[in-house]
Amino acid sequence: MVNKQLNIGIIGLGTVGSGVVETLEKKNNYFKKKYNLEINILGISAKSKNKKRAFTVKKYKWYNNPLDIIDVKNIHVIVELIAGSSGMALKIANKTLKGKKHLVTANKALLAVHGEKLSELAKKNSVNICFEAAVAGAIPIINVLENRMLSDNISNIYGILNGTCNYILSQMSEKKISFNTALKNAQNAGFAEADPYDDISGNDTAYKLVLLTNLIFSTNFKSKHVYLEGITKISNIDLEMGHKLGYTILLLGISNIKNKIIQLRVHPCMVSKNSLLAKVKNELNSVVLEGDMVGKTLLIGKGAGKKPTAASVISDIISFENYKQRKLEYKKEKNLSFIGGNINERKGKFYLRIGVLDKPGVLADITSFFKRQKISISNMFQLEKKISGYVQLIFVTHNILERQLISTIKKIEKLDKVKTKVNVIRIENSI
Amino acid sequence: MVNKQLNIGIIGLGTVGSGVVETLEKKNNYFKKKYNLEINILGISAKSKNKKRAFTVKKYKWYNNPLDIIDVKNIHVIVELIAGSSGMALKIANKTLKGKKHLVTANKALLAVHGEKLSELAKKNSVNICFEAAVAGAIPIINVLENRMLSDNISNIYGILNGTCNYILSQMSEKKISFNTALKNAQNAGFAEADPYDDISGNDTAYKLVLLTNLIFSTNFKSKHVYLEGITKISNIDLEMGHKLGYTILLLGISNIKNKIIQLRVHPCMVSKNSLLAKVKNELNSVVLEGDMVGKTLLIGKGAGKKPTAASVISDIISFENYKQRKLEYKKEKNLSFIGGNINERKGKFYLRIGVLDKPGVLADITSFFKRQKISISNMFQLEKKISGYVQLIFVTHNILERQLISTIKKIEKLDKVKTKVNVIRIENSI
Repeated sequence: MVNKQLNIGIIGLGTVGSGVVETLEKKNNYFKKKYNLEINILGISAKSKNKKRAFTVKKYKWYNNPLDIIDVKNIHVIVELIAGSSGMALKIANKTLKGKKHLVTANKALLAVHGEKLSELAKKNSVNICFEAAVAGAIPIINVLENRMLSDNISNIYGILNGTCNYILSQMSEKKISFNTALKNAQNAGFAEADPYDDISGNDTAYKLVLLTNLIFSTNFKSKHVYLEGITKISNIDLEMGHKLGYTILLLGISNIKNKIIQLRVHPCMVSKNSLLAKVKNELNSVVLEGDMVGKTLLIGKGAGKKPTAASVISDIISFENYKQRKLEYKKEKNLSFIGGNINERKGKFYLRIGVLDKPGVLADITSFFKRQKISISNMFQLEKKISGYVQLIFVTHNILERQLISTIKKIEKLDKVKTKVNVIRIENSI
Repeated sequence: MVNKQLNIGIIGLGTVGSGVVETLEKKNNYFKKKYNLEINILGISAKSKNKKRAFTVKKYKWYNNPLDIIDVKNIHVIVELIAGSSGMALKIANKTLKGKKHLVTANKALLAVHGEKLSELAKKNSVNICFEAAVAGAIPIINVLENRMLSDNISNIYGILNGTCNYILSQMSEKKISFNTALKNAQNAGFAEADPYDDISGNDTAYKLVLLTNLIFSTNFKSKHVYLEGITKISNIDLEMGHKLGYTILLLGISNIKNKIIQLRVHPCMVSKNSLLAKVKNELNSVVLEGDMVGKTLLIGKGAGKKPTAASVISDIISFENYKQRKLEYKKEKNLSFIGGNINERKGKFYLRIGVLDKPGVLADITSFFKRQKISISNMFQLEKKISGYVQLIFVTHNILERQLISTIKKIEKLDKVKTKVNVIRIENSI
């Protein structure tokens, strides 16, 4: 006999939503036995009722208007698995919380934009928002941040938070294929959307970084506070040169905290190829948390996909039954003592690649700028092959302030013999 | 103003216990601000009052008899940080739970031996036992298992659960130093106890593996169900040969589950040197969980030490306030449908090293035994240098049943020309 009943409504039946329904169907008996819990789907809704799905839609009560599901009296939890930072997703969230129902969502965009207001609304109505599936798929990072490292002052977060980008960079590096071929492969393998913009631009990583950062510091940062660079400018030559220098190139989301200043940034990084993060290949995601008590803790797992993401959604659902009293009220709602940092204040090493005319004196011209700006160079070499007819010069700097480098680069780019923009990749040595 | 008060008593003031007191002193204001929570230490106890400690013992009420702390009426949580699977530790646990107080402990031996009875006692008295610090130090594995992967059928657990062993093996491998030198270094670096028996024998790993396995499957396995081999038989030559074959040697705790049969084992393993686990070096710990939904999820972090372990204890303490209603009752108390497997039924590859006389025919004699038992060999070579005067033969098998190998080895060891025991290391290819 099962003592506990949990009634849910599911809105959005794409990959993840269907995965949740299929898993609940398949594992219903397992949950009854293991958790003494029966999870009932009292309503479903999605854009198209007739789309082909792996479960029988007819078995469930269908709502054309998703907002109507929230009115079903005995539903405890609304599972929102549609996309978008506003519009219907926001309407659903607002109505769910005002209706005193718990919200489970995988919608990082929604939370990155409206997280603070929705949190307040949830608190006011004594319900919760759970969003494990919104960041890094199956990696239990939200749960760990809510329940562990509670005595730590967290100083750094590093994350490989986008499987598409990681897959593309891994494949480009291992198979020596172009960005476009790698992207196509990723799409064929189901690791990239037909429209990959949000992934390869770094936007998706920025949303997730914002969620993690706000969760840890009770701040209210938005995507606009994140310094953002995608992976489209990474070429095989940079991957190859990075490798030669001992580095792997990853797209990381990073929050560094120092003296209450938080620097949020998403950009390609060169990290030591011997670091653990450099071993996180293809569609895998990873998050590193660094605190004054635990040092570095690393989590690695599947960042996307039907089953891994559905697993996080379902863990959130089951947790409601176990922790009906679950409250996040210990988190301060707003923390004004942290301010956003400017990327120009980052201090670190840089990799630079410059395309120049094959003429004498060009190296002397460039290095004289470095000398004048007191930028010391730890490594310099010239590629054997030219690219688009230009000689490629590679420089690796010692630790310098970013603004110091940027102003110098502007001057270098104005030189007649310098024919390309300077390709800059930040080196992260502390990972 | 702080709304919430949590009163605790701390028993055991060694490295971890002192770390907890020091951290609570240092971070008291942080907790007030962040969690709206004041943690008060109402009593402390340890073997020796006069031992030099980094905090002022006099500031706290001292109890010569630790059991007396439990009688203090307004204490909510007893933090037990002494060692031992029975004796005083067991008395403290029993009295705490019967007194309807929550228990936080790092005592893996106690829980591995008496876990089931203590769980029942806790449930009966509506209190909880928290033991994040008992397994893998700062790695939040207990929390993850209690709260995440709830829809997964977990099929495999692999763990580097003992920092001492991992440190010794890493150092032997990287610095080409002997076991004894590496052990001494570990002791000097604070990563090994003066008496390292529990660590290097694999006992400590077995305790932790038992805790993880029982937590996942609601089983009641004890250490005696764990197949156990320590690391003392690992020599530099095996590390070197492993490396040559593409493997790193790690001491792993492993639970494999198949058809409701759980095989618990702790022994040195050869794993691919390209695997993520092989990159977990020195005192770091790691746990890999494999489930049908999430695939493999890996956690890596500091497995021991004052601050990392104290961090887990304090997260447990703070969680009590956040989750006063926290109940683990959804876990079945006993699960009789899982039975322990026998190591003889393991199927896998093996590395074998055999010391033989430098005489013709010896290789033919040995390989004829393999042939007769249908053990196929994927790799065979002879070391250039002799060890203790004997030629060293290295064999790598294809996948075979362990019992098949063992019976063959017994026959081989009886050969006149075979002068040493066959050194067997299991190869784990699925990690």
